[in-house]
Amino acid sequence: MDERGKKYLIKEDKDFHSDFGFIKKEHLEKSEEGQILKTHLEKEFIVLKKDVNDYVELMERKCSIILPKDIGIIIAYTGLGAGSIVVEGGTGAGTTAIYFGNVVGSEGRVTSYEIREDFAKIAENNVKGFELENVRIKCQDIKKGIDEKDVDLIFLDLPKPWEMVEEVKKTLKNGAYLATYNPYIEQFQILHNILKKNGFKDIKTVECIFREMEIKSKGTRPKTRMLGHTGYLTFARKL
Amino acid sequence: MDERGKKYLIKEDKDFHSDFGFIKKEHLEKSEEGQILKTHLEKEFIVLKKDVNDYVELMERKCSIILPKDIGIIIAYTGLGAGSIVVEGGTGAGTTAIYFGNVVGSEGRVTSYEIREDFAKIAENNVKGFELENVRIKCQDIKKGIDEKDVDLIFLDLPKPWEMVEEVKKTLKNGAYLATYNPYIEQFQILHNILKKNGFKDIKTVECIFREMEIKSKGTRPKTRMLGHTGYLTFARKL
Amino acid sequence: MDERGKKYLIKEDKDFHSDFGFIKKEHLEKSEEGQILKTHLEKEFIVLKKDVNDYVELMERKCSIILPKDIGIIIAYTGLGAGSIVVEGGTGAGTTAIYFGNVVGSEGRVTSYEIREDFAKIAENNVKGFELENVRIKCQDIKKGIDEKDVDLIFLDLPKPWEMVEEVKKTLKNGAYLATYNPYIEQFQILHNILKKNGFKDIKTVECIFREMEIKSKGTRPKTRMLGHTGYLTFARKL
Amino acid sequence: MDERGKKYLIKEDKDFHSDFGFIKKEHLEKSEEGQILKTHLEKEFIVLKKDVNDYVELMERKCSIILPKDIGIIIAYTGLGAGSIVVEGGTGAGTTAIYFGNVVGSEGRVTSYEIREDFAKIAENNVKGFELENVRIKCQDIKKGIDEKDVDLIFLDLPKPWEMVEEVKKTLKNGAYLATYNPYIEQFQILHNILKKNGFKDIKTVECIFREMEIKSKGTRPKTRMLGHTGYLTFARKL
Repeated sequence: MDERGKKYLIKEDKDFHSDFGFIKKEHLEKSEEGQILKTHLEKEFIVLKKDVNDYVELMERKCSIILPKDIGIIIAYTGLGAGSIVVEGGTGAGTTAIYFGNVVGSEGRVTSYEIREDFAKIAENNVKGFELENVRIKCQDIKKGIDEKDVDLIFLDLPKPWEMVEEVKKTLKNGAYLATYNPYIEQFQILHNILKKNGFKDIKTVECIFREMEIKSKGTRPKTRMLGHTGYLTFARKL
Repeated sequence: MDERGKKYLIKEDKDFHSDFGFIKKEHLEKSEEGQILKTHLEKEFIVLKKDVNDYVELMERKCSIILPKDIGIIIAYTGLGAGSIVVEGGTGAGTTAIYFGNVVGSEGRVTSYEIREDFAKIAENNVKGFELENVRIKCQDIKKGIDEKDVDLIFLDLPKPWEMVEEVKKTLKNGAYLATYNPYIEQFQILHNILKKNGFKDIKTVECIFREMEIKSKGTRPKTRMLGHTGYLTFARKL
Repeated sequence: MDERGKKYLIKEDKDFHSDFGFIKKEHLEKSEEGQILKTHLEKEFIVLKKDVNDYVELMERKCSIILPKDIGIIIAYTGLGAGSIVVEGGTGAGTTAIYFGNVVGSEGRVTSYEIREDFAKIAENNVKGFELENVRIKCQDIKKGIDEKDVDLIFLDLPKPWEMVEEVKKTLKNGAYLATYNPYIEQFQILHNILKKNGFKDIKTVECIFREMEIKSKGTRPKTRMLGHTGYLTFARKL
Repeated sequence: MDERGKKYLIKEDKDFHSDFGFIKKEHLEKSEEGQILKTHLEKEFIVLKKDVNDYVELMERKCSIILPKDIGIIIAYTGLGAGSIVVEGGTGAGTTAIYFGNVVGSEGRVTSYEIREDFAKIAENNVKGFELENVRIKCQDIKKGIDEKDVDLIFLDLPKPWEMVEEVKKTLKNGAYLATYNPYIEQFQILHNILKKNGFKDIKTVECIFREMEIKSKGTRPKTRMLGHTGYLTFARKL
């Protein structure tokens, strides 16, 4: 991070270049967390270990991503934890896969299906860059079947999640969760019907209207800019 | 869970009694997940492994608890994951400690400070009941000092979190997060000032307005009942 | 209004009785706005001229009513003002008719259709009690036709407002507005389609999430209790 | 309005020019509401009588304006109607004055104080353009005193509305309302205290989170763009 608070992802085997000057790879290799490095322009940079939020902010993405507020609610409402086994349909840039991988840890596993080769490649690079060994991207159509068994959470970011309900039922453990993310009302309406017909329980659809506060010398108020809507989250349980 | 969808926490070394009849402990001991047991009244119960949401719903609590929507946002916004080291101030019934313990897993650790002995006892029982070995409740005033070092996340559910800012700074790793939960606007206003003075970065206060949808044969709509406000979440980073 | 802030609707030709004692009709008749009257128990009451909010709060109603927040948005979004001609379908207890009547004044006119005789009677009494001479309740099925012509605003609080669209088009002035109130998403979806087919313009559906703040010595915060949803308002213009 | 739905304010004594061609003033003078006029480019325009929403949308404004959603809530919560007497502090471009003038009609009156000469001039032109004879703009500092008496509503859009509370009390009728609009939390906090000390009743502060729905062939959803916050409305009553 530079003096302005701007963050950079660093590869230790290359010299680092920025508009604030460059740092040689020898110095990067020897640096430790919290250490301050100077560029040839005498600008200061602080060395930090990337966390999942930094990383997702800086990694490559060619498609819209699911926001942390929605990912957090998925984690809490499905009781995701260290050791959980997750299957995802619709990897995109890999944002959710990376968050999930960060939570399930070395005893857990995340398998994410992505039909588009370009997205799968980006996601795979992103996962590798965050050094997650428990996340696997499959460039494969999830509608043709889920290879995994006894899964704790299936998360679908697909336009027609209802097409997967029977396969989801076969794949989930007893008591385990399906979670879906969809922008449109029609999508969760159809999904609810199909879930009910397939005996899923605790079906609910929620939405998080997320507000950030502004605290300035002029006064305190909710920020003027706010996202009106991201997506609806639907949860259901195989019981 | 009985035929109505009502859930129960079971101890295997005791007979189980309910208004739907009883099941002997011998049957409970031998049962497996997904199995169906019948009471002496021929009512069916399905055996399920408790997950964190079931558990928190059913465990004893003598104080108001933080809702999953807010816990989820804390997890996502602080990048909490398997292996993280967490310190909490204000255990209450142990809800957040249990969610955090579930996420950080066996390689992580949660230490939670609670000044009130009655709450600490309830929380300890709750933690034990969920078989979390990585969560420790300390019946101790956190304002007298935090024993832990190099912590990834400090979460404070205290009326005056600003009193802890200097101690928090000493305890957190570089790049690590403070998160606080407070119902009142005045609280995050004071906290922001103190955090800025102490050099914390990325300070933000957010709120999640949580809406559940109702999907009935009559039509689809947001539910009439909704919580108007739970608490403000403030995040800050030691950099 | 008594010393506790509780309000009462008074008829001048009857003695007034309350749990704070009674006041004779002779005193009521002679009283003026702002004057303080004492009951035989020496309790004080202040005499106030009822305004539309007081009145709607205290009047008889046997059905759910539309809230001021939604009525206000209808008034502003349709540019309702003194002299406007309004037709309403679905009077209920007469709340909206009374608010509209209050705004359009002696040069305007509100005609409200109500199919249920019991509601029409309650509404008529309520209108009379507020001394509005520009509001007329018709106990008549609006689906059989609207008698009025060249109307500035048609407001429909009906389960199937789309059945009225052609009649609405015939009844409205050029540039005038249709406004509808419906709790369900399916309702405004169907309505949008029919409105478009009939050439209506500026079609929009909005919702007002209404939040009240709590300012106490403990601190300031949004109130815990909040209505999650009342209804969707749809506006369209005949152009 | 042209074929694209774009609206224009027309002066009958001048030729009308647009990127769709021009129309001679002789044709404008003779035209009637609902009539279709063609430009020299054979483009069609429909003649409409301006309503308050059209007008406010098109009129000149050099400062931020209060939105209809907030104006509507002020009207409904203060029971504003035909014949009401209104005083406003802080005219701005005259938006609220025009809406209020439209509601109170020829039997009512709106007096609006604006300290800045440039704003007062714009507002005066805007009021004249909408042909409101019941609205008067005073280029005068409202803090030096309110000339009017027995007022039904005082609306203040001032940074420090609490400085006016005593004067407001003198000016309002018994039972009448003060309404204020302020973006910051600190503002309504101070105001509440001063209002209480001055014996005002029914003090409340509210906020309207306004959401518009999007109905497209792809599906229905709340719009992505939404204002996070406009202002807090505080209401109080002199009793």
